[in-house]
Amino acid sequence: MERPKVAFLGPVASYTHQAALESFPAATHELVPYTTIADIFQAAQSGAVWRGVVPFENSTNGSVVMTLDLLADRKKELKDVLVCGEAYVDVRHCLVGRLPKELRPSPDQPSRPGDDLERFKKIKHRIKKLYSHPQAWGQCELFLSEHLKGVERQDVSSTSKAAEIVAQENPCDEHFTSGSDITQLGPDIFGLDILAYGIQDESGNMTRFFMLKKEEPEDPIESPLNAAISPTSQEEEPILTSATMPSDYASGNPFSQPTFKTLISFTIPHTSPGALAKGLGVFGDHGLNLTSINTRPSLVEPWNYLFFVEMVGKRERHGRGSVNAALRDLQGVARTWRWLGSWEMQVDTAV
Amino acid sequence: MERPKVAFLGPVASYTHQAALESFPAATHELVPYTTIADIFQAAQSGAVWRGVVPFENSTNGSVVMTLDLLADRKKELKDVLVCGEAYVDVRHCLVGRLPKELRPSPDQPSRPGDDLERFKKIKHRIKKLYSHPQAWGQCELFLSEHLKGVERQDVSSTSKAAEIVAQENPCDEHFTSGSDITQLGPDIFGLDILAYGIQDESGNMTRFFMLKKEEPEDPIESPLNAAISPTSQEEEPILTSATMPSDYASGNPFSQPTFKTLISFTIPHTSPGALAKGLGVFGDHGLNLTSINTRPSLVEPWNYLFFVEMVGKRERHGRGSVNAALRDLQGVARTWRWLGSWEMQVDTAV
Repeated sequence: MERPKVAFLGPVASYTHQAALESFPAATHELVPYTTIADIFQAAQSGAVWRGVVPFENSTNGSVVMTLDLLADRKKELKDVLVCGEAYVDVRHCLVGRLPKELRPSPDQPSRPGDDLERFKKIKHRIKKLYSHPQAWGQCELFLSEHLKGVERQDVSSTSKAAEIVAQENPCDEHFTSGSDITQLGPDIFGLDILAYGIQDESGNMTRFFMLKKEEPEDPIESPLNAAISPTSQEEEPILTSATMPSDYASGNPFSQPTFKTLISFTIPHTSPGALAKGLGVFGDHGLNLTSINTRPSLVEPWNYLFFVEMVGKRERHGRGSVNAALRDLQGVARTWRWLGSWEMQVDTAV
Repeated sequence: MERPKVAFLGPVASYTHQAALESFPAATHELVPYTTIADIFQAAQSGAVWRGVVPFENSTNGSVVMTLDLLADRKKELKDVLVCGEAYVDVRHCLVGRLPKELRPSPDQPSRPGDDLERFKKIKHRIKKLYSHPQAWGQCELFLSEHLKGVERQDVSSTSKAAEIVAQENPCDEHFTSGSDITQLGPDIFGLDILAYGIQDESGNMTRFFMLKKEEPEDPIESPLNAAISPTSQEEEPILTSATMPSDYASGNPFSQPTFKTLISFTIPHTSPGALAKGLGVFGDHGLNLTSINTRPSLVEPWNYLFFVEMVGKRERHGRGSVNAALRDLQGVARTWRWLGSWEMQVDTAV
């Protein structure tokens, strides 16, 4: 039987690869590296893959702007892509390169803690250039400013790519790189030595990933929004205010569905004073626990924004629940809005 | 008399230089280029300069993360830095480099619209490498993907720096770059030719800049927050709810002080469900018109955020007004908060 295809942001041994493997074991899935986050969104939209895995935010560096911009879908080319899951991966950066032969640890001699730092201090003056993903510089600033201040840095598309470049370009120990922690997927994948291990500023530095899929028929109906009305009822749904709202809406207990999260995007009328505060207010009105907020330029006109709000709770197919109620209110305030998925919440491993 | 010093993000001819010149004319101010945004914040904090000018957000690419992270001041080393003004600068990117002699426009022959694009098409196949600031790629994506797809790109620290590199490294027309629009400050500053003018995706692409200063004694008192009570009154300030709030608070007309903006940062308790929605709700409760929202990792613990909320209105020295009232409410919800300045609002020029 053909295994379902899962696209991840490559190259092989990237953090996204790790995240994909955690959710989609290689034995039962065909994991395929993709070059860009945009390619993964497109593959999910076209059905070329069953799932896509993309980075969403790092606990030190913040949101991944490219992922937000694709979720924004300003050209309406990705309108069926939904977030259907999340995964957390610990980030442990290594500085990798080539050690001089005399300093290379013997494979039959176990290394002791601190060994690598002592060794590193002996060779750090020989490092002339660093390659890494732009986000990794920010995650390793303390180490780099202490040990490698002023060394030229070149941005590349991923930490794995950085390791690949160093391996290809440097048969000797002239150039080095900050590469990703590749131990989990094969320490020798690029034939390099680890010069310093765990050089990231924060212990507990994690990246959160989103699993993407194409919307399926059983997903909650996006419109009409008044689907809350029972299919058998002939009456029009009354306009609900906080005073008249039935208790199952108004109570809005954020823990009534504790194991789900929902992502919404919306824009507000540029010219309506207070609309943003009102738009954000609808979630509080329904007692929803917001877990993240992001903004990006809407590109409709300057200084008009697209807002991403993530909350605990699930959008229900038949219109019940706090999330559905908040979306109904949002409809009255937002210029446009979109449900981007509800998925089972994962707990990060480090906290 | 010594002219007051104004630090701007260099090099000379950068967009920040333009922004600085608009607010602080060179005749009456000493404009000093600084290498990093962090250096400018530090110079403002230490009093080494009278004002600092830093980029805050671009209408296409969004917020400048480095500026947000410095406003976050996680190490409490910039606690007196306030935003005291803003400026908008139109972004018009040019592709600059060296034209072959035979294509160089004669100085006494005025160029007609479209000339540069026709000329560019003749030489674009000779462009082997592009240098620019990472944000500029995103702003010129349409032009670059149509005309220069697949050409190697190297990130450098600024568009002006890119032009400088090309000028230094290329006595002939082998390499080209996307440099900033330097026409306003001197078209020949780097001795290069304009290969294509106005190559940015969006017309009306603008960057907003903040003016920074060190907090002065006449700035609004940061604490105690209950300074709203009249100095002569002996009664304790009543707890104000929306029902009992005097009209000058409750009306919350966002245009009662239409010419000011205020920036606030705050964190919320990690463990308190709904606190974020409540924190954001206080601004709506007081009828404030929010003009931007940003989030960054608090770095206190993973997935705990620092929120930046910008609104129309001014924090008053004596505790009156909607902004002060909202801050009083925020005090009850936020774990920490900070007033980052109130300044006279500028209108962007393109809308």
